[in-house]
Amino acid sequence: MSYNTFGQLFRVTTWGESHGPAIGCVVDGCPPGIELTEADIQPFLDRRRPGQSRFTTQRQEPDQVKILSGVYEGRTTGTPISLLIENTDQRSKDYANIAAQYRPGHADVAYDMKYGHRDPRGGGRSSARETAMRVAAGAVARKILGPGVVIRGAMVAMGAHAVDRERWDWAAVEQNPFFCPDPRAATEWEGILDGIRKAGSSIGAVLEVVAQGVPPGLGAPIYGKLDADIAAALMSINAVKGVEIGDGFAAATLRGEENADEMRMEGDKITFLANHAGGILGGIATGQDIVARFAVKPTSSILTPMRSVTAAGENAEVFTKGRHDPCVGIRAVPVGEAMVACVLADHLLRHRGQTGERRGLGQ
Amino acid sequence: MSYNTFGQLFRVTTWGESHGPAIGCVVDGCPPGIELTEADIQPFLDRRRPGQSRFTTQRQEPDQVKILSGVYEGRTTGTPISLLIENTDQRSKDYANIAAQYRPGHADVAYDMKYGHRDPRGGGRSSARETAMRVAAGAVARKILGPGVVIRGAMVAMGAHAVDRERWDWAAVEQNPFFCPDPRAATEWEGILDGIRKAGSSIGAVLEVVAQGVPPGLGAPIYGKLDADIAAALMSINAVKGVEIGDGFAAATLRGEENADEMRMEGDKITFLANHAGGILGGIATGQDIVARFAVKPTSSILTPMRSVTAAGENAEVFTKGRHDPCVGIRAVPVGEAMVACVLADHLLRHRGQTGERRGLGQ
Amino acid sequence: MSYNTFGQLFRVTTWGESHGPAIGCVVDGCPPGIELTEADIQPFLDRRRPGQSRFTTQRQEPDQVKILSGVYEGRTTGTPISLLIENTDQRSKDYANIAAQYRPGHADVAYDMKYGHRDPRGGGRSSARETAMRVAAGAVARKILGPGVVIRGAMVAMGAHAVDRERWDWAAVEQNPFFCPDPRAATEWEGILDGIRKAGSSIGAVLEVVAQGVPPGLGAPIYGKLDADIAAALMSINAVKGVEIGDGFAAATLRGEENADEMRMEGDKITFLANHAGGILGGIATGQDIVARFAVKPTSSILTPMRSVTAAGENAEVFTKGRHDPCVGIRAVPVGEAMVACVLADHLLRHRGQTGERRGLGQ
Amino acid sequence: MSYNTFGQLFRVTTWGESHGPAIGCVVDGCPPGIELTEADIQPFLDRRRPGQSRFTTQRQEPDQVKILSGVYEGRTTGTPISLLIENTDQRSKDYANIAAQYRPGHADVAYDMKYGHRDPRGGGRSSARETAMRVAAGAVARKILGPGVVIRGAMVAMGAHAVDRERWDWAAVEQNPFFCPDPRAATEWEGILDGIRKAGSSIGAVLEVVAQGVPPGLGAPIYGKLDADIAAALMSINAVKGVEIGDGFAAATLRGEENADEMRMEGDKITFLANHAGGILGGIATGQDIVARFAVKPTSSILTPMRSVTAAGENAEVFTKGRHDPCVGIRAVPVGEAMVACVLADHLLRHRGQTGERRGLGQ
Repeated sequence: MSYNTFGQLFRVTTWGESHGPAIGCVVDGCPPGIELTEADIQPFLDRRRPGQSRFTTQRQEPDQVKILSGVYEGRTTGTPISLLIENTDQRSKDYANIAAQYRPGHADVAYDMKYGHRDPRGGGRSSARETAMRVAAGAVARKILGPGVVIRGAMVAMGAHAVDRERWDWAAVEQNPFFCPDPRAATEWEGILDGIRKAGSSIGAVLEVVAQGVPPGLGAPIYGKLDADIAAALMSINAVKGVEIGDGFAAATLRGEENADEMRMEGDKITFLANHAGGILGGIATGQDIVARFAVKPTSSILTPMRSVTAAGENAEVFTKGRHDPCVGIRAVPVGEAMVACVLADHLLRHRGQTGERRGLGQ
Repeated sequence: MSYNTFGQLFRVTTWGESHGPAIGCVVDGCPPGIELTEADIQPFLDRRRPGQSRFTTQRQEPDQVKILSGVYEGRTTGTPISLLIENTDQRSKDYANIAAQYRPGHADVAYDMKYGHRDPRGGGRSSARETAMRVAAGAVARKILGPGVVIRGAMVAMGAHAVDRERWDWAAVEQNPFFCPDPRAATEWEGILDGIRKAGSSIGAVLEVVAQGVPPGLGAPIYGKLDADIAAALMSINAVKGVEIGDGFAAATLRGEENADEMRMEGDKITFLANHAGGILGGIATGQDIVARFAVKPTSSILTPMRSVTAAGENAEVFTKGRHDPCVGIRAVPVGEAMVACVLADHLLRHRGQTGERRGLGQ
Repeated sequence: MSYNTFGQLFRVTTWGESHGPAIGCVVDGCPPGIELTEADIQPFLDRRRPGQSRFTTQRQEPDQVKILSGVYEGRTTGTPISLLIENTDQRSKDYANIAAQYRPGHADVAYDMKYGHRDPRGGGRSSARETAMRVAAGAVARKILGPGVVIRGAMVAMGAHAVDRERWDWAAVEQNPFFCPDPRAATEWEGILDGIRKAGSSIGAVLEVVAQGVPPGLGAPIYGKLDADIAAALMSINAVKGVEIGDGFAAATLRGEENADEMRMEGDKITFLANHAGGILGGIATGQDIVARFAVKPTSSILTPMRSVTAAGENAEVFTKGRHDPCVGIRAVPVGEAMVACVLADHLLRHRGQTGERRGLGQ
Repeated sequence: MSYNTFGQLFRVTTWGESHGPAIGCVVDGCPPGIELTEADIQPFLDRRRPGQSRFTTQRQEPDQVKILSGVYEGRTTGTPISLLIENTDQRSKDYANIAAQYRPGHADVAYDMKYGHRDPRGGGRSSARETAMRVAAGAVARKILGPGVVIRGAMVAMGAHAVDRERWDWAAVEQNPFFCPDPRAATEWEGILDGIRKAGSSIGAVLEVVAQGVPPGLGAPIYGKLDADIAAALMSINAVKGVEIGDGFAAATLRGEENADEMRMEGDKITFLANHAGGILGGIATGQDIVARFAVKPTSSILTPMRSVTAAGENAEVFTKGRHDPCVGIRAVPVGEAMVACVLADHLLRHRGQTGERRGLGQ
């Protein structure tokens, strides 16, 4: 990972500011001959798109993606795929004060510390709008992985309110505005988040991404570990403060016997009797489900005035009007899925390069 | 990060197996003119060295580091620094059965899935012995950062037993076999871990690394975020299953007002009134303490027989005699510190490259 | 260098096909606070633009560059700079037959060997149209280097007809259609190339790029040598078959005494009495002029029918109508300058990162 | 390429100074399961070893390579391969004056300009001794490529004295001290070089490397072109001033018709009727022989006193006693072969990663 590029063989470079003319990315290293049209990408962008319920920002962006290169007659050519989304709803006036004063929890102050100069409109480069391009790149990654690899995300806690895993239903995820796998929790969250939204406040969330059908062998010791790359990928998403794999922090409380994923032969195939490890051992996929969770802090833009300072060095009270998500974690679900997809596609190509292995190629 | 190298301008490449003739690393990109001798590195290796208490493996390794290149007349020359530690206590017979059967929770099975061939002696490349070289590289990183940047680690929970943060005492960390900052907890842990050790079991842990004096501006959006690189660095350590920055997963339970790190001017300097963010906003250091925690699973090598399979595809019962740490988290403390040091040194050089900023250079 | 990205700290990723909707690039790693507008880039594109004399292709492309990100209020922000040029004159019908049969000397056959699928329109990705984005990126690189570093290119031989170095005049370079520094040679070349053009043939060329004012110390042993990076950068330009630094191949014919660049003190400054080395020793700039030359083969697209084969595996006779440069080397002059500028900007940032050196920064 | 590492999937990191305790390299990314012992590497080192004729330096180094990691039971494991050669004949006294004064043509002055500090013993890091590790890595690369890819080098000109290509005999290359493919030229060169050696002078050379059996498709547009990577690899060798592919600089003098490599079908296989391109089109291998040449300047260390300056800033006369090669190009032949082997192995893995292609894998 280097500034605005991630991945090694499947490489994604994103660019663009929240209120510039457009945002985009270049997807490099995609194998040739894969069927790809804008229609393969758009549904994932639509899942992340703002303004779809009262629980996400009311900014209206159609987020129509255009493929500008790398595809000929509906198939990838192996050359870089340039994707572009025009910004249409840029109410920069909403953000006029961002230039002058630092919003607590936002990157404004850090950008000025680093660069001494920033584009303040809508948060500029630090806006979560950038994640739209991750979702677009993730759609390409899914095509490389093929239908045998299924990557799905869900919100498993809003604030302190966790789902009941006994009621987990993947179908439910697409049927409520929270990507919540527990329909009863979804109903409760609606009431809670309405209260938070009306209070001008915000709340954090925990999200989970599960990848099924990942070919064993993906990942590489020691500094190309699959879990290390997933950790970096998820931690790079706006507002994320923690990442865990499998049992994660709970594993720290276990005894060796409790944490062991025992094995048995089923015919000529190794079967694991548990999945505390989250599908990864020594940085390498075992073929079990890969399970990753990440914590998203509450949206920093809130109506409550907070103590802060101005760029000119004066004390100030700051509150953010504008249009914001009361729980920014919701829209991070498709982003988390996309990041996992990109990491897996990259490791598929790398694994294939080093070992010649062809399993799992989605062509 | 790429296979066995991490970092971009400060680059560390490690090599070696647990029971090969030696382990080593190449540290590339170190600035010239920095005073460096083996005596700068050895104390950090000694902190990590096995066999220092009854709570760590009884393998006896002096872990004497040798500098083979890159230093002339006591100062770095800017050319690659080759570090080497000879393996002396290689009781391979202890591990004869690792070749034949897979230990649950270990990487044996994953290596065979990926490579079809592995060095089984002592876990080969997947052994935590590799982390000695991380500690050595971290000592070089500290020299680059200079005395103004202080990086310290501690064990904050053993199993479900957490320290009391009210009793936090950095001096205590060096005075008990757990790197525990709470003397009372350390005493309790002694009893608990004795029981676990005698039972042939093991236990997980949570560790915390704090970096003070980090120059504001280190880190870079979007895929070179300081927290993303720390997450990858810590997750790449053996047995780590989770990473968090600042409030981490607890941030997910907060409201926006609770999570805000408010700011005030103190003279001409911005002061933060809290540090929920753990010193990083938008992937960029703000000058506050950087706080990272990571979860280590219980040692997988235990005396209790567990169900497993052999490399030949038969069911088997596996237990590990050998010499092992009942709480592998203990010795991960100096490793975690070293990884944070390496990430910071890398970002210091990168920041200096892009912005010309000279603050924080330890020369 | 990796597929479609070059550079390490100053990173350029290009995308786009000859006859797609647009071509573009992402310039990542540019320092913040540098004044940059489209007017800084456009003049360099205009120098490379086709259709400016009867000696270059008559394809009409205004090559108007747009900055889509990374610049705010006329200054760079340190975030990625997205540059885009729309393709307007795409007469794909001229190229209908490229899909079916391989043009000798072109990359068509190699792309099919590698990818099994390609965009044949105008040569697709292998078209020299991609070099427009190198020129655009080079303009950004020049801004980083600042006015103290002067990078100029010239055509020093057309076919076997070399310039007379006694008559070298940089001002002349902009006054003839060949970037020729020798006015008399330029006049001769006009007649020669008219004949070649009318015969439907083409001719090769040798180009030279000179960089003055390069700060001593840029470059890095062993695999980050400045000359190695320049060699890769120039060799990556379409149709280039050779690269040399300083005396280049002629150095192979010299004795040690003849090749030595002797030194004397002038005041407290080291002065070199010759420049056989072309400004680089051990991969590191010495402060002398950096001199690089590269050889461009004759345009492969010619009217003379040549023996070839079809994609379907039949023998065929191939000749290229379309619009082509009879000496493709001419337009490679601004491209060569741009590549050298990009390499130097990258090394400036890298050098600054490793050594803290601030000389030569164009801010 | 980054400082002391080259390659992307097949990555070689070298370290060590001419007169330090040892030199070494880490070869990362080697596929698992390849048979490898020290006996596979040693013969290539022996070809490069000094002191084998009166035409190479009389420094006596057995150059015995040791494998320290990455190989188990005679086969690679996919983990990093650490190779080490001890320095035994370190007559540092010969070089005492290098610290004080700059030798014209050497990197001493450039290292001081960059780093302000260097290891002067035997040239330190800038000594060609580093190339021993390239040769060792190249031997590993050859194992990856397998016996179907044959990479051979030869010296094709010593000074202005070129071989007669009509007399080219690969068998002769191993039968004279010059790696000369033309037995008659070899005899002549002996007399010429004796004179140069006795005069305390030196002479340049041109070398050629030919790779046969390279699988079509290796290489990648635009900045991962096979010829660009070969150019960087060869230019990074000590004393190299020029690189060309196929006809190289001679191509600049040709007409389009003359330079075309026409094609015909032979059965279902495309056959080229010429190889002006040197086996690479658009940066991608076509299956023809890959032909690369590089120019090596005369050894800078000569007995004739030259004008120079001291590190303290005084004028001085410098001449080099010590033990030196009168034609440093001779020993660059195995180095050039090795670099081409490394580039090809890297591209084989990268190609396999992106396209899934398995041709050419030497397993």
